[in-house]
Amino acid sequence: METRRDFIKKSSILSLAGAVQPASAINLLQTKQQTKPKTHWADGFRLVVSVSMQFEAGGQPDNAESPFPQNMQKGFIDLPAATWFAYGYKEGIPRMLDNWDKLGIKVTSHMVGTAVLKNPQLAKEIVQRGHEAAAHGMNWATEYTMSYDEEKKFIKDGIDAIKKVTGFDAIGYNANWLRRGENTLKILQELGFIYHIDDLSRDEPFIIKVNDKDFAVVPYTLRCNDIMLIEGKNFSADQFVNQVKMEFDQLYAESEYKRRQMSISFHDRIGGSPQMVKAASEIIKYIQQQPGVAFKRKDEIARMALADKTTIRE
Amino acid sequence: METRRDFIKKSSILSLAGAVQPASAINLLQTKQQTKPKTHWADGFRLVVSVSMQFEAGGQPDNAESPFPQNMQKGFIDLPAATWFAYGYKEGIPRMLDNWDKLGIKVTSHMVGTAVLKNPQLAKEIVQRGHEAAAHGMNWATEYTMSYDEEKKFIKDGIDAIKKVTGFDAIGYNANWLRRGENTLKILQELGFIYHIDDLSRDEPFIIKVNDKDFAVVPYTLRCNDIMLIEGKNFSADQFVNQVKMEFDQLYAESEYKRRQMSISFHDRIGGSPQMVKAASEIIKYIQQQPGVAFKRKDEIARMALADKTTIRE
Amino acid sequence: METRRDFIKKSSILSLAGAVQPASAINLLQTKQQTKPKTHWADGFRLVVSVSMQFEAGGQPDNAESPFPQNMQKGFIDLPAATWFAYGYKEGIPRMLDNWDKLGIKVTSHMVGTAVLKNPQLAKEIVQRGHEAAAHGMNWATEYTMSYDEEKKFIKDGIDAIKKVTGFDAIGYNANWLRRGENTLKILQELGFIYHIDDLSRDEPFIIKVNDKDFAVVPYTLRCNDIMLIEGKNFSADQFVNQVKMEFDQLYAESEYKRRQMSISFHDRIGGSPQMVKAASEIIKYIQQQPGVAFKRKDEIARMALADKTTIRE
Amino acid sequence: METRRDFIKKSSILSLAGAVQPASAINLLQTKQQTKPKTHWADGFRLVVSVSMQFEAGGQPDNAESPFPQNMQKGFIDLPAATWFAYGYKEGIPRMLDNWDKLGIKVTSHMVGTAVLKNPQLAKEIVQRGHEAAAHGMNWATEYTMSYDEEKKFIKDGIDAIKKVTGFDAIGYNANWLRRGENTLKILQELGFIYHIDDLSRDEPFIIKVNDKDFAVVPYTLRCNDIMLIEGKNFSADQFVNQVKMEFDQLYAESEYKRRQMSISFHDRIGGSPQMVKAASEIIKYIQQQPGVAFKRKDEIARMALADKTTIRE
Repeated sequence: METRRDFIKKSSILSLAGAVQPASAINLLQTKQQTKPKTHWADGFRLVVSVSMQFEAGGQPDNAESPFPQNMQKGFIDLPAATWFAYGYKEGIPRMLDNWDKLGIKVTSHMVGTAVLKNPQLAKEIVQRGHEAAAHGMNWATEYTMSYDEEKKFIKDGIDAIKKVTGFDAIGYNANWLRRGENTLKILQELGFIYHIDDLSRDEPFIIKVNDKDFAVVPYTLRCNDIMLIEGKNFSADQFVNQVKMEFDQLYAESEYKRRQMSISFHDRIGGSPQMVKAASEIIKYIQQQPGVAFKRKDEIARMALADKTTIRE
Repeated sequence: METRRDFIKKSSILSLAGAVQPASAINLLQTKQQTKPKTHWADGFRLVVSVSMQFEAGGQPDNAESPFPQNMQKGFIDLPAATWFAYGYKEGIPRMLDNWDKLGIKVTSHMVGTAVLKNPQLAKEIVQRGHEAAAHGMNWATEYTMSYDEEKKFIKDGIDAIKKVTGFDAIGYNANWLRRGENTLKILQELGFIYHIDDLSRDEPFIIKVNDKDFAVVPYTLRCNDIMLIEGKNFSADQFVNQVKMEFDQLYAESEYKRRQMSISFHDRIGGSPQMVKAASEIIKYIQQQPGVAFKRKDEIARMALADKTTIRE
Repeated sequence: METRRDFIKKSSILSLAGAVQPASAINLLQTKQQTKPKTHWADGFRLVVSVSMQFEAGGQPDNAESPFPQNMQKGFIDLPAATWFAYGYKEGIPRMLDNWDKLGIKVTSHMVGTAVLKNPQLAKEIVQRGHEAAAHGMNWATEYTMSYDEEKKFIKDGIDAIKKVTGFDAIGYNANWLRRGENTLKILQELGFIYHIDDLSRDEPFIIKVNDKDFAVVPYTLRCNDIMLIEGKNFSADQFVNQVKMEFDQLYAESEYKRRQMSISFHDRIGGSPQMVKAASEIIKYIQQQPGVAFKRKDEIARMALADKTTIRE
Repeated sequence: METRRDFIKKSSILSLAGAVQPASAINLLQTKQQTKPKTHWADGFRLVVSVSMQFEAGGQPDNAESPFPQNMQKGFIDLPAATWFAYGYKEGIPRMLDNWDKLGIKVTSHMVGTAVLKNPQLAKEIVQRGHEAAAHGMNWATEYTMSYDEEKKFIKDGIDAIKKVTGFDAIGYNANWLRRGENTLKILQELGFIYHIDDLSRDEPFIIKVNDKDFAVVPYTLRCNDIMLIEGKNFSADQFVNQVKMEFDQLYAESEYKRRQMSISFHDRIGGSPQMVKAASEIIKYIQQQPGVAFKRKDEIARMALADKTTIRE
């Protein structure tokens, strides 16, 4: 049975032999589509949805970017902005945790080390309620500018904080604003991580070689991510709902023939607001109506991808 | 009866005793949820909604930020921008006052001293129609950069202006852009204030110690606030309606078991436009359909919170 | 019969006599509202809607602001941006003219002198199809920085261009970005203008004294204005429709007791796009369903306001 | 039979003879409209829709603009931004290709030379599936600053890359951000191109003289273009759908009497996302419900326009 890639190879050869014949090539393609193979996930699902819950608030530096005007005079602290962040651990994460339980899903929580140390009980509760703790750096520093040694300590300190507080061994990584440096993946492989998410290039996981060993990439999203779309400015919560539903509709249709992964992301102080929890609830209930869809933590996805010989390799 | 906090403590101890057992922890939690206590407000309501009406226009400095391009050449005054502000007292506040009457609610009006002196009849009318006058500084100066003495005079002048014009003793405070300085709360306590709103960290009021005495925090909002969402740029009025309704839906659902406060804010020259008064009307009528919800002024909320032993203390 | 203003005066005196009594004051007010006078327009309409059609394109300087990135290197001309402006006279104005005819309304066209000279046939057609030609400066220069003499010539040149090309004597004025200078109104009065629109402070016209003579202000809008809301960036056309309908709903409700004016504005290269003409059509048809509403040119509104003794005077 | 242009000429003469008589002029116009000629396309269609698919990703320079914050420190590469671009060729173009087949339409793909060389199989597949390959420069350089010789080589290299990889002779051109320089059109004419799209001034193609020979302009769009409206920031996908449908509604209505062209544009890494492919699908199905509408490649449109004596000439 031919896949689309086979078709491409074959028709390339044909085209070398003479003039391009678009019409017949398309007929050929359309015939193929009717018999194209169904390549679902190893466990039979056609679409896997992964929800991220960023646990960052409390660990931010003074005057970190917020919806407040970025015009603080030097030498002063933006006190109300700090309360905007505090909302993340006082209301946001607890509200989201209740919502995930109500919806019956498990998520991946990307935890900044300083945030974990600031609110250890909350970090522990996240894990105890069945969610994955993934590493997200020791603090909000700009990771890509660090030297190899500095970065290795930075990442190690973060997983140590998570381990000490929650008992969880983090095996997944997310750099600040996704911005890894040239050494990041090598360090992650050395420290025992099995996957990272700082890649937007596919709608399904894939495997790369790092230090000559397999390493999984579980792609992330800026499209279905509260930080890009909301920020108190760009999108209203109902637009977010409409847009993410459209994303799902298309991926679900595609998943009839090809395994697909959808990623949705929520940050403590943004996705944890009442309106965004309502939005998440509407989105997830909408998705749960379709057969063949599973919500999974990113560590589950990484393990499944690494064990599956049909996973894309780059 | 166990609260969620008790659960967290207990399960923390359990987890120290051995491996984390997410599944059983969650079962435990779910059992708890079925018997969790209903902690409503002292007067029996489950959700209190507080509407703010900023009275700032007329007191602004020349060339204050407006929807006009911020590119005035030096030495000139932005005359049409001044008329944009004037809309706030000529049309905006009067229109909102009629709307609050029609809807049968009382609001909190955060009054800038210079705005009160510029339009004393309007300030007086706000109070006479049953709304709260809260202080909002003597003018639009950057409060967080002031010395202790300078700031104390600044705040005192503002409440004196309100008292003289409206007869109302302001006991609540809102700093310009919420940006209080390190001394602000101490000064407020010294001047007889009982609460401030420059905090976004919770969806219910809480008590802090200032100068060793109780002081109430009645949280504010940037999410359900016309200044962040409209400004003639980001959101359309119908998006504002949709988003605030979603905020209410979630808070109302939560309020079955836990007292909740929702804050909505309108500025004279923005929230006072016809389209935003229409928006406010739609939102408030939507909220008023649900039982157990009360609209209250922030002074009422502060007094109720201070008198209630179950209010959160930080 | 008492008006709201009478009520305010009376209750002010009451409040001086003792403690403020909000509840009784409100009861008094509510009684008054039932008998409040209906102050409609002189010709019996309750709500007048004025549509503006800016005729500016073709007269813009090189590299005028457009939806293209504002990063042209020095010494080069932004050629595609010029075609974006050209759309205004090639497609935009003709399309809008057909739409106004189809809807049966007359509008006010604010004409820049250089745009009129660049496309004289189109300027003439606007007037011949029954619309008002109002002046909008000789070109896109920054009017508020000009000396008295310079500005007088600038305005005079603009009306001369309009007169010469269209035969119309402009009596209304709109400054570039509404930004008049300190001398503008005096100059307009000297040149025979009877009104200007560079004021956002009311939802009805009013009269001011300029050079000791009456001068009408016919307020403009940034809210229901394609230049603030669209620009290819902020709002979609359907949001514009929703928002302007909400503006109308509220103004129409108010107009039961008080004359009201609504302003809507379209620019040649923005409001003249197919999607915005569709939007304008939806909005205007929606408005035309209500009795007591008239669409009028701004010169008609100014004349009616100046002749009416009940018009607000400032 | 009189056209609108005849009417304008005639009424201009009338108006020179005396006072402008708007009312009668309009009556005259309305009579004319009932008998206005139907000027459809040469092949009988009333509205032609052209879809563009930009093939740019993979050829971008390091740190090209993306939805990531534009604040990279000097000397570092924005690695996740590169994966955002890679999405364009890994998922975006393949997904769009399947969608065009499903919808039964052929599009014009504007191909950057370096993108073609980076992913030759994909470029070849685009052509083999029946779509047009149009040139889009050799790389992402700022074309309008180049000397004549430099620019000629730049454009030539781009078409050579397309020819070598796909076998297609590109005859249409699109400059980076539409920004052609003063020499661009001359060079295009010399190199055998028959049309360019870097013009927004009309809703139908037109002919200009370049080097004394006919050259077609097939107008482009910023309004119905994912790059202006989405960018992860401004519009949600459902707003895009609503807005483009409104654009179509108006153009379709106009096309009863006048040939019209509608342009819609999608970029590999933006329009190729699931939500935007869903959006495109909704839009195109909506359009396909109306009789008299054809989807055509821009080379077909250019040829038809050049061969038609009734095409507008400038």
